[in-house]
Amino acid sequence: MQPHSDNSGETAGAVGESELIRRIAEWLGPVNPPPPEGMGDDCAVYAAGAGLPQLITTDPVIEGYHFDETVPPEWVGAKLLKRSISDIAAMGGRPRRAVLALALPADTGLEWLGRFFEGLRQCAAEYRIQVTGGDVAETTGPLVANLTLVGEAPSGRVLTRRGAGEGDHLLVTGALGGSRAGHHYRFAPRVEEGVWLAGQPEVRAMIDLSDGAAKDLPALLPAGGRAELDWANLPLREAVRDDATLDEAGRWVRALCDGEDYELLFALDGSASVPEFLRR
Amino acid sequence: MQPHSDNSGETAGAVGESELIRRIAEWLGPVNPPPPEGMGDDCAVYAAGAGLPQLITTDPVIEGYHFDETVPPEWVGAKLLKRSISDIAAMGGRPRRAVLALALPADTGLEWLGRFFEGLRQCAAEYRIQVTGGDVAETTGPLVANLTLVGEAPSGRVLTRRGAGEGDHLLVTGALGGSRAGHHYRFAPRVEEGVWLAGQPEVRAMIDLSDGAAKDLPALLPAGGRAELDWANLPLREAVRDDATLDEAGRWVRALCDGEDYELLFALDGSASVPEFLRR
Repeated sequence: MQPHSDNSGETAGAVGESELIRRIAEWLGPVNPPPPEGMGDDCAVYAAGAGLPQLITTDPVIEGYHFDETVPPEWVGAKLLKRSISDIAAMGGRPRRAVLALALPADTGLEWLGRFFEGLRQCAAEYRIQVTGGDVAETTGPLVANLTLVGEAPSGRVLTRRGAGEGDHLLVTGALGGSRAGHHYRFAPRVEEGVWLAGQPEVRAMIDLSDGAAKDLPALLPAGGRAELDWANLPLREAVRDDATLDEAGRWVRALCDGEDYELLFALDGSASVPEFLRR
Repeated sequence: MQPHSDNSGETAGAVGESELIRRIAEWLGPVNPPPPEGMGDDCAVYAAGAGLPQLITTDPVIEGYHFDETVPPEWVGAKLLKRSISDIAAMGGRPRRAVLALALPADTGLEWLGRFFEGLRQCAAEYRIQVTGGDVAETTGPLVANLTLVGEAPSGRVLTRRGAGEGDHLLVTGALGGSRAGHHYRFAPRVEEGVWLAGQPEVRAMIDLSDGAAKDLPALLPAGGRAELDWANLPLREAVRDDATLDEAGRWVRALCDGEDYELLFALDGSASVPEFLRR
């Protein structure tokens, strides 16, 4: 059977990501447990013996989609790892080890690959991650590099997307918007912030902002809940704050919709007072 | 920088898999520990607290390389999982949980995908594996499905490729050759056999036969070692044994070079007598 369909209504592209993920969950049935053990949070959580909770996440970079010839190969390698680190951080975890599967066209240049690995290596060294194995295979199509990262939650507590309640404060670890000006390659995943937050019992839920707050924030709300945004205090990244072509509403749209912020958004128990250092 | 090179000598395809893996180990340096913790065995091994040794492996199926439109999608999904299960079995482990990253062309048919997941689901259920998450992304090129599997070694002992000594017996869990006649999709990874073997102190090293014994067996030999093959007792799969077009030498070549046997090859301490049930 052909993997490709000419029934344009019943293809992956036509139904879109959310519906596709819904169908995959349906197809897998009980083989996929409810989140956070199964699909639906930033990582999948599991126990390995009596030790700390384990976290696992997997992400690709795909040529033509996540990068092209304008991007230095070091940035591609580093970003592949940092996106997954941010997922581990979003649950209060510290990254530990990665495996990498490469699907390479035969004409992939070794110079490009060497620089890709240099970016990956530097980032792994910085975050004390071991890159322990993987696979190399040939493809006729674009280059696909797929990384799987395993981490653990040092506080013993995992923060999930669920747990926020009515009246909770919503806070973010940094500024939003304008990621295309370079931040989406230069960002530093918020690992230590995430670990610290998971250790605070007043913090009830957390997510990392990869698609943008407009899409990611709703996942943090209790069913039927609404978020009230403090527009005057919305933390804007420089590229948006200083853009004279934008009016105030334009800046808000950029902050909420640009995506790739890789900041942590978390819910703080509404009965707790927000500590001074968490205010801008 | 272009990932593709017109310097035909310095490309992934030109240097080939072994040299590419050697360079990757060089590029990664100390970020990649020695095997079995790092690259170089069937899985990477790690400790998670005081529990059982953990095993991790990652493998893709790539359209046009691992499968095409002649293969039922259920077989593609099942094989993706079974190849990784065989890697876990090769170290004496039992598979526990998987994550899956899909790079899908926009025109990927949902009917094909649903059947792919049906094969994956059935296999996961059979081996009591949870499929706990993953990623869905778009690609302009062929479909790539990448699975990462985590397992653990129930006996507490992990069998690696190293450990065989002079005079050891080399044994295999089943027949060899002829995998193209269907075995390479229909095989059953030798999980229980692997777990049992890891619990026997006389078994000193193990590998799974995925590329064929001619390529995989040398990895089990001590440095400078040679293997003496018992040609008369070489276990042949039916498709090879019964092929009247082959002479004896032709059968041996097929048994050693066809690949995709997914049997376990292991070294038994030479001072131990080979138990009767391990003989044919």
